[in-house]
Amino acid sequence: MKKILWPVRVYYEDTDSGGVVYHANYLKYFERARTEYLRAMGHELDVLSREYGVLFVVRTLGIDYLKPARFNDALLASAEVTGVRPASLTFTQTLTRGEDLLLATAEVKVVCLGVDGFRPVAIPAILLHSLKHEF
Amino acid sequence: MKKILWPVRVYYEDTDSGGVVYHANYLKYFERARTEYLRAMGHELDVLSREYGVLFVVRTLGIDYLKPARFNDALLASAEVTGVRPASLTFTQTLTRGEDLLLATAEVKVVCLGVDGFRPVAIPAILLHSLKHEF
Amino acid sequence: MKKILWPVRVYYEDTDSGGVVYHANYLKYFERARTEYLRAMGHELDVLSREYGVLFVVRTLGIDYLKPARFNDALLASAEVTGVRPASLTFTQTLTRGEDLLLATAEVKVVCLGVDGFRPVAIPAILLHSLKHEF
Amino acid sequence: MKKILWPVRVYYEDTDSGGVVYHANYLKYFERARTEYLRAMGHELDVLSREYGVLFVVRTLGIDYLKPARFNDALLASAEVTGVRPASLTFTQTLTRGEDLLLATAEVKVVCLGVDGFRPVAIPAILLHSLKHEF
Repeated sequence: MKKILWPVRVYYEDTDSGGVVYHANYLKYFERARTEYLRAMGHELDVLSREYGVLFVVRTLGIDYLKPARFNDALLASAEVTGVRPASLTFTQTLTRGEDLLLATAEVKVVCLGVDGFRPVAIPAILLHSLKHEF
Repeated sequence: MKKILWPVRVYYEDTDSGGVVYHANYLKYFERARTEYLRAMGHELDVLSREYGVLFVVRTLGIDYLKPARFNDALLASAEVTGVRPASLTFTQTLTRGEDLLLATAEVKVVCLGVDGFRPVAIPAILLHSLKHEF
Repeated sequence: MKKILWPVRVYYEDTDSGGVVYHANYLKYFERARTEYLRAMGHELDVLSREYGVLFVVRTLGIDYLKPARFNDALLASAEVTGVRPASLTFTQTLTRGEDLLLATAEVKVVCLGVDGFRPVAIPAILLHSLKHEF
Repeated sequence: MKKILWPVRVYYEDTDSGGVVYHANYLKYFERARTEYLRAMGHELDVLSREYGVLFVVRTLGIDYLKPARFNDALLASAEVTGVRPASLTFTQTLTRGEDLLLATAEVKVVCLGVDGFRPVAIPAILLHSLKHEF
């Protein structure tokens, strides 16, 4: 698995009075796809936290909004890892309507922190191993 | 202090594509007012958690939506305690545009839980004391 | 179809610093289930709005929070219509972990409004017809 | 007025189970500050929409998360316009705890769209005039 495409349905909760998806909510869709990407490789974030004492937080995020997503849209949020460092991962992501119409692109760098102290720590070997198999 | 009126401005984040405030977001306004009610009596929720090992969670909630709140509205969320039990509080709350136009009413029962175990525990005496002075 | 069970995965977006799902977000899950209930009968809310000039807004809502939902939980939100009036519907809903562990129950009354004017109007016959077949 | 500092209180609604403010919610704080920046110059977004037929949507957004914001924090979200084009504005923004501790920085480009058609249109002269006085 090099890339995941995760289905996202747009509900009222996601929209704003401009009639489109509120811009901050794209970040939720992208995070769902990152979570499902890890799950598809067999890694659950709550297990990583409990057993390895780590969590991932967003360190930098860049997003391009190309076309608006609308109420009731059936979207696909993609996630793939395009950079691996000892304590951080870079995801390149897209949001499309159907498989073709590109609505947004994003690059998101997440850092691995210790749950105690909130300082950067090495990504658990078991996760790095899965990711290395991807490259 | 028997009642607090807390100002709430409606931003895009709060609205939905119906052009009005999304119904779940009224609950956020009401919680802000409850938090500010306790703060006005000198009680900070993070201090109560750290020093007394308790947090409050919503147990039941009933809300009547009377008129829609809209983008850019300047609202007032009220909070007053109308019921005190050893391990729970009942708040009666309103949301108004200006001081007069009633948009919503709510009754919210919150339970005091221990941060470890998430089981009901007695409300800290220091908080009960403040509340008793209200009645 | 008398009742829908709609799967809901809990992501970080849904949780709060108490470590559980933020109480207002249960309302989002319940609305997703209501939307999917109508979709399962062949009714799309955006089509109802465009072709019949109506939308549904929550008029009253009562919710009981029984047990906390947590990060990564795989939940089921149910929706069934337990009351039909000319211009309103009442939904009875549950949130469960798996099919058995009950986390919350809700009763939600939604009113059918005209998109122009935001006043109550009769529920479109095509939708009433589907609902009547349910009773 | 060249820059606004807008106070933001962190409530439970803003946090996630990591114990800190959920990353997407920083975008809400930044938008509140942009809205208040325009309001401080005498421009209301709903009036601009009604009278000039325009709205602003985010076109690109880059954000650096430096330190976590936490429950109950009293923050300041800044907004200043650092770029003006015929149909777009660039805002440079910061989020600080108190006035000094920098938690996040962002650059946000918003585009002026016609409310009908959602296509880029010239920023209304009355708004450009206010902004030009800033430079």
